[in-house]
Amino acid sequence: MIRRIDHVGVLVRSLEQTLPLYTELLGLTAETPVALPEQEVRVAFLHAGDGLIELLEPMTPDCVLAKVLAKRGEGLLHICLEVEDIEDTLGRLEAAGVALVDRHAWPSPHGLVAFIHPRAFHGVSIELRQRTRPDEGG
Amino acid sequence: MIRRIDHVGVLVRSLEQTLPLYTELLGLTAETPVALPEQEVRVAFLHAGDGLIELLEPMTPDCVLAKVLAKRGEGLLHICLEVEDIEDTLGRLEAAGVALVDRHAWPSPHGLVAFIHPRAFHGVSIELRQRTRPDEGG
Repeated sequence: MIRRIDHVGVLVRSLEQTLPLYTELLGLTAETPVALPEQEVRVAFLHAGDGLIELLEPMTPDCVLAKVLAKRGEGLLHICLEVEDIEDTLGRLEAAGVALVDRHAWPSPHGLVAFIHPRAFHGVSIELRQRTRPDEGG
Repeated sequence: MIRRIDHVGVLVRSLEQTLPLYTELLGLTAETPVALPEQEVRVAFLHAGDGLIELLEPMTPDCVLAKVLAKRGEGLLHICLEVEDIEDTLGRLEAAGVALVDRHAWPSPHGLVAFIHPRAFHGVSIELRQRTRPDEGG
């Protein structure tokens, strides 16, 4: 069901201010930042072995993440777990009474994603992701 | 320098209340919880692929983590990066002026560890860990 830790999300005020900390001080490799206008966020992925750290910068002053930033400040935001079958996982979580932000998965640049509500996991925001793996047959 | 994301730390009020969420709802495998009296914390590791989630429960009402819990509540606490040579990494970070909680590594059950101060990484608490790898020769 759970394949691995896909990435850890970090909320930042500015990608430009924070990316160099991870690349220059820790030696991680960064992908080019991309804007996701529908989610009102700019993101940059950093590679740490086969895991990823995702830096997220709110794009507008009134978006959801800008409000989280204003309330809680910068820092760890979510943990993303890669699952084999996201709709199956969501269905089983819902049947167990788990509070979900997304009852069904939605497409992101790296596969299908959905969020479990933090209140279901004692304050931890968990993203589920089913990656498209072109190298895997059948 | 950085090998991979070793684990993600999660601060919880009670291991007994939170472990079943990860094992029963997400199907992760948990190791037996262990008490670390010197750090005044009980921890339980969960396996997610080759990554780990560490649940941390404060052991006493006045310890450092109990104060973090009282101030910020339960939730994501730190990210741990596995490094090849922790003293070399700490030396280079200190030379670059990075604020460190620990200037030198100290022994934990799973190798040598040290923490970078969250203010150096915009609110993210980063643990560095050099694992003892009995399977790796000289």
